[in-house]
Amino acid sequence: MDNATMKKALHAYVDAFNANDIERLIALFSDEASVEDPVGTPPKTGRKEVEAFYKESISGARLELLAPPRGSYRNAAAITFAVHTEKEGQPIRIDVTDVMTFDSNGKIATMHAYWGPDDIQQL
Amino acid sequence: MDNATMKKALHAYVDAFNANDIERLIALFSDEASVEDPVGTPPKTGRKEVEAFYKESISGARLELLAPPRGSYRNAAAITFAVHTEKEGQPIRIDVTDVMTFDSNGKIATMHAYWGPDDIQQL
Repeated sequence: MDNATMKKALHAYVDAFNANDIERLIALFSDEASVEDPVGTPPKTGRKEVEAFYKESISGARLELLAPPRGSYRNAAAITFAVHTEKEGQPIRIDVTDVMTFDSNGKIATMHAYWGPDDIQQL
Repeated sequence: MDNATMKKALHAYVDAFNANDIERLIALFSDEASVEDPVGTPPKTGRKEVEAFYKESISGARLELLAPPRGSYRNAAAITFAVHTEKEGQPIRIDVTDVMTFDSNGKIATMHAYWGPDDIQQL
């Protein structure tokens, strides 16, 4: 998987998320994708669980890319961003880095989201 | 491993690197640490290989943190930064995201550096 293809997919991920377009977002993932968000919690596995997770998290949330995506010398790439969303009616910001791996069709195979309890700020 | 301890170690990593202090930098790693930099290339394993790698890469290079470190719900954390260095006498910038895992003593056990050939800019 070349870096240009992976980075294009990561930009498409941010764009689909911010457009609140769950179908376009889910189409970026493989049917067997695994999403561990945040890292250290049980992964969501397969289209049904992944879609349910994003339906929950996409609503009212906006991703702000903080740096260009990074590639690698294999099928992995990373994005660093802030999530602007709400919790119990109050605006919050969550600082996150996602590492994605891709299958041979250019679909996201795994996603690991690095953020912990102290990466959430009440605004 | 709590997030505050991991983030403190990541800031210490950047500070030691920028001070060109190889001993202070290496002291942050476990003796059995594995460093895959960039991801997709053979890892450097154990103190001797890790030290040789950093001796080579630290010289004349400066790390610029682009966002605060991110934690997680296990022993992993991430930093996103630019490396300012030189290649054949010309200034270059490399855009990188490092994911580190930590052992129970708070030492870096593994490091994965996400950057690819198109994350290098000639300045």
